[in-house]
Amino acid sequence: MRGPNRTAAVCILTLWFGCLHVIALKSKLFTRHGGLPSSTEPPISYETFYFDQKIDHFGFLEDGTFKQRYLVASKLWQQPGGPILFYTGNEGDITWFCNNTGFMWEVAGELGAMLVFAEHRYYGESLPFGQDSYSDSKHLNFLTSEQALADFAVLIQYLKKTLSGAQHSPVIAVGGSYGGMLSAWFRMKYPNVVVGALAASAPIWQFPGMVPCGDFYKIVTQDFAKSGPNCDSNIRESWRAIGNVSSTASGLQWLSEEFSLCAPLKNKNDVFSFKAWLQETWVNLAMVDYPYEANFLQPLPRWPIQVVCKHLAFDSAVSDHQLLQGLSQAAKVYYNFTGSSACLNISQTATSSLGELGWFYQACTEMVMPMCTDGVQDMFEPEDWNFQAFSDECNAMFGVRPRADWAGIVYGGKDIASHSNIIFSNGGLDPWSAGGVTHNITDSLVSIMIPDGAHHLDLRYSNDFDPPSVRQARELEVKYFREWIRQAKRKPHPRL
Amino acid sequence: MRGPNRTAAVCILTLWFGCLHVIALKSKLFTRHGGLPSSTEPPISYETFYFDQKIDHFGFLEDGTFKQRYLVASKLWQQPGGPILFYTGNEGDITWFCNNTGFMWEVAGELGAMLVFAEHRYYGESLPFGQDSYSDSKHLNFLTSEQALADFAVLIQYLKKTLSGAQHSPVIAVGGSYGGMLSAWFRMKYPNVVVGALAASAPIWQFPGMVPCGDFYKIVTQDFAKSGPNCDSNIRESWRAIGNVSSTASGLQWLSEEFSLCAPLKNKNDVFSFKAWLQETWVNLAMVDYPYEANFLQPLPRWPIQVVCKHLAFDSAVSDHQLLQGLSQAAKVYYNFTGSSACLNISQTATSSLGELGWFYQACTEMVMPMCTDGVQDMFEPEDWNFQAFSDECNAMFGVRPRADWAGIVYGGKDIASHSNIIFSNGGLDPWSAGGVTHNITDSLVSIMIPDGAHHLDLRYSNDFDPPSVRQARELEVKYFREWIRQAKRKPHPRL
Repeated sequence: MRGPNRTAAVCILTLWFGCLHVIALKSKLFTRHGGLPSSTEPPISYETFYFDQKIDHFGFLEDGTFKQRYLVASKLWQQPGGPILFYTGNEGDITWFCNNTGFMWEVAGELGAMLVFAEHRYYGESLPFGQDSYSDSKHLNFLTSEQALADFAVLIQYLKKTLSGAQHSPVIAVGGSYGGMLSAWFRMKYPNVVVGALAASAPIWQFPGMVPCGDFYKIVTQDFAKSGPNCDSNIRESWRAIGNVSSTASGLQWLSEEFSLCAPLKNKNDVFSFKAWLQETWVNLAMVDYPYEANFLQPLPRWPIQVVCKHLAFDSAVSDHQLLQGLSQAAKVYYNFTGSSACLNISQTATSSLGELGWFYQACTEMVMPMCTDGVQDMFEPEDWNFQAFSDECNAMFGVRPRADWAGIVYGGKDIASHSNIIFSNGGLDPWSAGGVTHNITDSLVSIMIPDGAHHLDLRYSNDFDPPSVRQARELEVKYFREWIRQAKRKPHPRL
Repeated sequence: MRGPNRTAAVCILTLWFGCLHVIALKSKLFTRHGGLPSSTEPPISYETFYFDQKIDHFGFLEDGTFKQRYLVASKLWQQPGGPILFYTGNEGDITWFCNNTGFMWEVAGELGAMLVFAEHRYYGESLPFGQDSYSDSKHLNFLTSEQALADFAVLIQYLKKTLSGAQHSPVIAVGGSYGGMLSAWFRMKYPNVVVGALAASAPIWQFPGMVPCGDFYKIVTQDFAKSGPNCDSNIRESWRAIGNVSSTASGLQWLSEEFSLCAPLKNKNDVFSFKAWLQETWVNLAMVDYPYEANFLQPLPRWPIQVVCKHLAFDSAVSDHQLLQGLSQAAKVYYNFTGSSACLNISQTATSSLGELGWFYQACTEMVMPMCTDGVQDMFEPEDWNFQAFSDECNAMFGVRPRADWAGIVYGGKDIASHSNIIFSNGGLDPWSAGGVTHNITDSLVSIMIPDGAHHLDLRYSNDFDPPSVRQARELEVKYFREWIRQAKRKPHPRL
């Protein structure tokens, strides 16, 4: 899941390229390939395959196909009939999700499961029109969650038909973040294909009218508030301080030097982008506030927000410059924990890659996720959710307009009780839990809360520093997996 | 539901226009406007509205809208919160379905229900591109069941938002034939929108690999076999007799005169079309073998197959000409019961209207329904199901190819047990029951069989000649409706 859409909404105030900077920056979060397993994690091995998918499942005019990449690990699979854990790939290179979903690798043995990681169309190597996939709205037209779910369904049907011993294998969908939303929706829309789903940190309710738009940033703020004295209040103060200091040319220069920016700030637009970049930084820290050193979005220390907050502990008597010096040190925890960055390059992140633009196109079409701040219950500058501005921005960028109500209609909104066999796991530290399902809906639509967890901690490799809550969560998840597999085995196989 | 696809598959043997004749003829069945209520049926009144629907729900490039027609009858509605019975329109003018679904009108009062009849896109007045809607495969690209279901979902959301008193109204989907398939699928895919569905005579399993392809014609044959002595065997003999007699020019002339054809048969292609037309006639009779005089596809006597069979009761010693004279009288029961037809015009039916082509496009894309005959267990000339020939035919006609597996994947095939609150009603006389759900799947996915019923008899107005089985079926259907409504009332309304 990328950071919130909010930045895009305010982009209309900025120049086109300034805006693109911010969006691209934000969009980069999940496609950064920093998450390869460290040497302490078990080695993983898989085979890579490509499947010919229809470019358009919902129309017949476009009958072309593209190569969808998927990875298969079947060493521990107990065939015939052993279960398949199927990762519903999200907005990025599937090898990255494969390497960052240690949970699946760790439970494959005890379940005798085959692992399949399916790449989401328009990301990684699974490009419907090759290099042209992102060239215009015509080529982007088939980048939707519905098409992605249909890809998964068709791929699974193919695997069950062609893999010896897989015909009666129960398939369980697993995914985190947007991939978790896809897992949940996959079970809702294709219960004939998957017997259940683990939707980790999946904000399926972060859509218009479902949850308050301010909850996301409230959780970010709470994470900072409890990680050190004055931490949230100093960040809340920092926006004003940035405004003050950046009002003069010498102040701009000082700021640029203090933050070791590769490209100095030159004008108000740059300051706007700088603030957005900082805001994203705090959000990202909240997402990856893991209890051990990790390299998910960036290489970070254990409990990184506590480390950040050590630089922001001073009381309110501090000067603007002192406050910003602390802020700079705090930001560098995120951007330069390893000490390898010569400078912080906020414009470099504007280099667009296909994967980066993809999520923004999705946010500009189906994935309309309202965010807002008030500066009181959160530590950010107040800003309302402005759908019209967001829509105009999307129209300017892609020539498409978002449909605010569609996701709620097609995926059920808050009225999902008639579905079954979905686990919604959420971390209490994760801002995306604001839009997640955090209470049991029925006996088989269950919520698992991990109070000390950040963004889908449960999907990661187990670690000595794991809090008990995530250990219990994983145990419970496997228990549900076993129950779904049992149910599937009991069911007679439909015959002609 | 139109007659089977089989005719299309054999069309490759004929000239292009000969083929088009047959297809158009077949497609006409459900768009014939002969079904206005007779004077014995209660008058109905409704208001007509138009809703701006997105042309494409599954892509954002095409952002245009079209006017979807829907009819509303709210006189008996108990607001606030009274239920809504929502007819999921099938392949034709919605007023025709409105007029031919007396069941809904009869139960509206006792349920305090609003009735809504929603027209299916590309039929009646609901044309996404006006006159151009059928001009080519580009314009036809949005004619799919998924788009139609999305139309229904968006429309219902709009109604609940805008109609005072409807916000918490439980909605029940009702449909017959293809409309019944839509009702069932609607509940499966949008359980957030409808609390249950009555899928009457809905052959949701008439797809590749789900039921034997010969069952459809077996049921047609059984209907004739039990409606009079020698009836099925004489029809089985008739194909050979037609072949014999039509082998000479004088024979062709005799045949044309005997059947009072408006355009005389001239060659083998004409004979091929003639046979296909007859085959469709017997199929249609099986579909409308109602226990009382009715005017559904054609004005017909009560138990029309029994009347037809009176003309086909002779034993095997009869000559080809005698046999065909009987056959002619039999066909005229269907085509000229009222005596108003000066001649039988098989070519006239080739006049295409938008609605007629529509179903064939759907059959050529998603609605791949295999049919076959063996001449032994059925009374037709043996013919295998030939998907490739059918696909080539579709490609020649529309520039699209059917996807044999898609409907099974997207709508669950035989693995639908995890859904709920769907009634599948089927008539024992109806050939489409071959592809229907004729056994209970779970407590809330139930089958109601009407042994003496033809095609969705239960949806028609009640009649003094109704067999007890259809009276019981309707009672049971209302009982389920009440239960679903009770369930919905018990459920808390999701809030922000």
